[in-house]
Amino acid sequence: MSDTYENRAYRLRRRPQGELAEGDLELVTEQVPELRDGQALVRTELLSLDPTNRIWMSDIRGYMPPVPIGAVMRGLGVGEVIESKRDDMPVGAKVSGFTGWQELVLADDSLLEAPLTVLPDPLPAPLPAFLGALGHTGVTAYIGIDLAELKEGETIVISAACGAVGSIAGQIAKQKGAGRVVGIAGGPEKCAHAVEKLGYDACVNHRADDWREQLDAATPDGVDVDFENVGGPIMDHILMRLNIGARVSLCGMIAEYNTYNEGGEHAGGLTNIGQLIMQRARIQGFLVLDWGHRFEEAIGYLAVLLAEGKLHYDETIVDGGLAAAPEALGQLFSGRNMGKLLVRVAWD
Amino acid sequence: MSDTYENRAYRLRRRPQGELAEGDLELVTEQVPELRDGQALVRTELLSLDPTNRIWMSDIRGYMPPVPIGAVMRGLGVGEVIESKRDDMPVGAKVSGFTGWQELVLADDSLLEAPLTVLPDPLPAPLPAFLGALGHTGVTAYIGIDLAELKEGETIVISAACGAVGSIAGQIAKQKGAGRVVGIAGGPEKCAHAVEKLGYDACVNHRADDWREQLDAATPDGVDVDFENVGGPIMDHILMRLNIGARVSLCGMIAEYNTYNEGGEHAGGLTNIGQLIMQRARIQGFLVLDWGHRFEEAIGYLAVLLAEGKLHYDETIVDGGLAAAPEALGQLFSGRNMGKLLVRVAWD
Repeated sequence: MSDTYENRAYRLRRRPQGELAEGDLELVTEQVPELRDGQALVRTELLSLDPTNRIWMSDIRGYMPPVPIGAVMRGLGVGEVIESKRDDMPVGAKVSGFTGWQELVLADDSLLEAPLTVLPDPLPAPLPAFLGALGHTGVTAYIGIDLAELKEGETIVISAACGAVGSIAGQIAKQKGAGRVVGIAGGPEKCAHAVEKLGYDACVNHRADDWREQLDAATPDGVDVDFENVGGPIMDHILMRLNIGARVSLCGMIAEYNTYNEGGEHAGGLTNIGQLIMQRARIQGFLVLDWGHRFEEAIGYLAVLLAEGKLHYDETIVDGGLAAAPEALGQLFSGRNMGKLLVRVAWD
Repeated sequence: MSDTYENRAYRLRRRPQGELAEGDLELVTEQVPELRDGQALVRTELLSLDPTNRIWMSDIRGYMPPVPIGAVMRGLGVGEVIESKRDDMPVGAKVSGFTGWQELVLADDSLLEAPLTVLPDPLPAPLPAFLGALGHTGVTAYIGIDLAELKEGETIVISAACGAVGSIAGQIAKQKGAGRVVGIAGGPEKCAHAVEKLGYDACVNHRADDWREQLDAATPDGVDVDFENVGGPIMDHILMRLNIGARVSLCGMIAEYNTYNEGGEHAGGLTNIGQLIMQRARIQGFLVLDWGHRFEEAIGYLAVLLAEGKLHYDETIVDGGLAAAPEALGQLFSGRNMGKLLVRVAWD
């Protein structure tokens, strides 16, 4: 009887000004109604933390509507069906999709923004991978490299090199024959990891005072492709390194998301866009959600690399249950996490 | 005997800080050496003033090397051969190309940055058109529209709508079936001209306090294509109007050229590049000099429109000889000119 269940959920109470702060989200406890036909109840096991969570909290013109004030915070997760009145979601099935920031999800396609997907049984990889290397994160990396039309021998720069997307993108770039794969990451430990575990040819620590000179030195032949996750001064400097005909795959601009909803103020802008003219270069923005028709191809590609031992992936799993999510999100913006950042909401 | 000729030329003495100022260029008088075999002497008749002249004066990383200090200022022009020891350039022939800012050009392919082109005889259009609608300016407009992959029924916004490139681009867009062609220009007279003579569906005066609201009102269905000539706050606002899958043909960013060589200072930057992600949009920078292989196609297309009376073009010809060039250049940045800006250096 599902009406014996209590759900805990984060509801958005107000739009953050700058970093997410106490009181922007409220952890509420709510009774779960009894299941009706066509509904299943899913226990969220892992919640994916993505920079775009911060965008969804703001009311900037985005690619999905802002999370309405009062609504459960939007988020991707994986979980297990614990009760079911749906034939396509038997008890015990693992599912992924827009679970939201909540412990229990009433899986009724008319209630959620997008249907949950039932994962294969048995799982071909550990569950966390379906939010990372074999999930939307891995597909994002794959599509971004594809859109950049990376050619053999070229130099590619990847910001947030050890992040969920960047870490996969760097390895795909190497597999696709890039001549030089240069990462940008925050701190010497991450840079060492990027080179030793992720196969980057070089990694620049953007917390060093001379990061610009380091980046110049690391890209002696200029930059043909920029897989851009960060924006801000790092992207602005990369623009000055672009070669003729360079391509920027614009995946994210995490450096600016915390400026959304600050009354229109913005901490500087990009001053070197004119280099796109000089170098006849392009910036292509993209969102993984447009590429559903290529998920199978992308995940297939990544699963093969994984099976062959050619894909290293990192996870930072935060324990502490759902309550840990808001603070954990801050790790993405301060760069504390390594690889995919997840919150363990519940676990077998 | 060409050694009886004196040439007057502008030589670059120092790189401008902000707007071109007295003393940045020096008008010098120099003896022309006697012609040797393989040389011709060209009298510059018209000099083309282009925003890129200001880029060439700076030492920003550009698409051509900066004009060296002490060298004759780089510029495009048309002229007539007045003496010749070259079979391919008989006396009386009209030529176009990198004449430089000078009255007489020693046309020896080893001396100039690019060979001069001999124009057809008789000329199929008045000489000034070969620096404008039927010259590099018209081709720039044609290529920019082509790269934007403008589709029937779409909304296109064109900044510097009455400028040399914009005025042609707007008309090509209309010919290609754009649903709505919206110009942005400086002042009510220009806007009236844009609508009445150039066929724009609407034109926004960016000098009006409420230009942003006007632009929003003029693009009720958003913006599918931006033919961008200006950059700065205008481009930044257009980015917020982009539709999903929008394309920006980045032709120029005249709003920032006068900031080059100001010791690295820059008057703000673009804060809305993140919208490229949200709208899965792209910016493609381009330079007409890459498209030599399509000049014939482009000029053929424009010549047909012209012959059919479907192409209106404007010229602002500044008299006063070569000495008028530096001050005339300022018209581009203050927006005083209408259409193609030329200086009459000498005329039959």
